[in-house]
Amino acid sequence: MKKPAKARAATAALRRSRCPVSCTLDVLGDRWTLLVVRDLMRGKRRFAELADSPERIPTNILADRLKRLVGLGVVQSRQYSDHPPRVEYQLTAKGEDLRPVLGTMVDWGIKHAGGRVPPPLPPRPEG
Amino acid sequence: MKKPAKARAATAALRRSRCPVSCTLDVLGDRWTLLVVRDLMRGKRRFAELADSPERIPTNILADRLKRLVGLGVVQSRQYSDHPPRVEYQLTAKGEDLRPVLGTMVDWGIKHAGGRVPPPLPPRPEG
Repeated sequence: MKKPAKARAATAALRRSRCPVSCTLDVLGDRWTLLVVRDLMRGKRRFAELADSPERIPTNILADRLKRLVGLGVVQSRQYSDHPPRVEYQLTAKGEDLRPVLGTMVDWGIKHAGGRVPPPLPPRPEG
Repeated sequence: MKKPAKARAATAALRRSRCPVSCTLDVLGDRWTLLVVRDLMRGKRRFAELADSPERIPTNILADRLKRLVGLGVVQSRQYSDHPPRVEYQLTAKGEDLRPVLGTMVDWGIKHAGGRVPPPLPPRPEG
C-alpha cells in the first residue's frame, strides 16, 4: 500500500458509526464494488477485462469504483505502459483480506439467492 | 417463511447473473440493508427500535428495506396489535443464515475500516 495514512483518512471521512459492519458497508456497500473485487481476485488486471463481466457493469461506474478503491487502499494501480499510458489493477493485502467476505456471500448466494457454484478461486498471491 | 415461491420469483427478477456473489448483492448490495439485518439479529423487532440506530437510517429507507426484505423472504412481519394495527419484524431462516456474512464483515471492518469490537451477538433463535 502506498498511502496508508491517506487511505485511513479516506475511510474515516465516510464513516457513519464505529460498528464494524457499518464501517465495512461504508467501503463496500453497493451493488458493484464487491463484483470488481471478485474479478480482481480471479486474476483480472486491466480495465477492459474488468468491464467484460456478465453483470455488464457500466464503464463510468467501473472507473469510479476503481478510483475509490485505490483511494481507500483496497486496490493498487500500476502503470504498465508509458506510450500510451496504461495502468493495471491489483488487490492490496487489505483487498485480499476480503476473501472470507466473498466466501460467505458465495455460500449464501448458492443456498438462498439462485447462485450457481462457481469455479474455485485462484490461490491468494504470495508476498 | 410464508411465501417461498413468491420470494424465489422476486429474487430471480432482480438477478444480474448466476454468480452467487452477484446474486447476494442483488439482495443486499447497498449501504443500509445489512444494518437492518444486523439490528434484527441483535433482537430489535419494532420499526421505532430499528429507526433508532447510530447510523441514523432515514425512516423512508428503513420502510423500503423492510418491505423489500419481507418480499424476498429474508424477514417476516407479524401483526402484534389490531387497534392500532402494528407489526413487528423478525429474520426468517434465510435471514439468520446471513450471520456468517455479517461475521466476516465484522472481522474486516475491525481490521481495516476503523470498526470497534462489538458486544457478542445473541444466539440464533431455536426452531
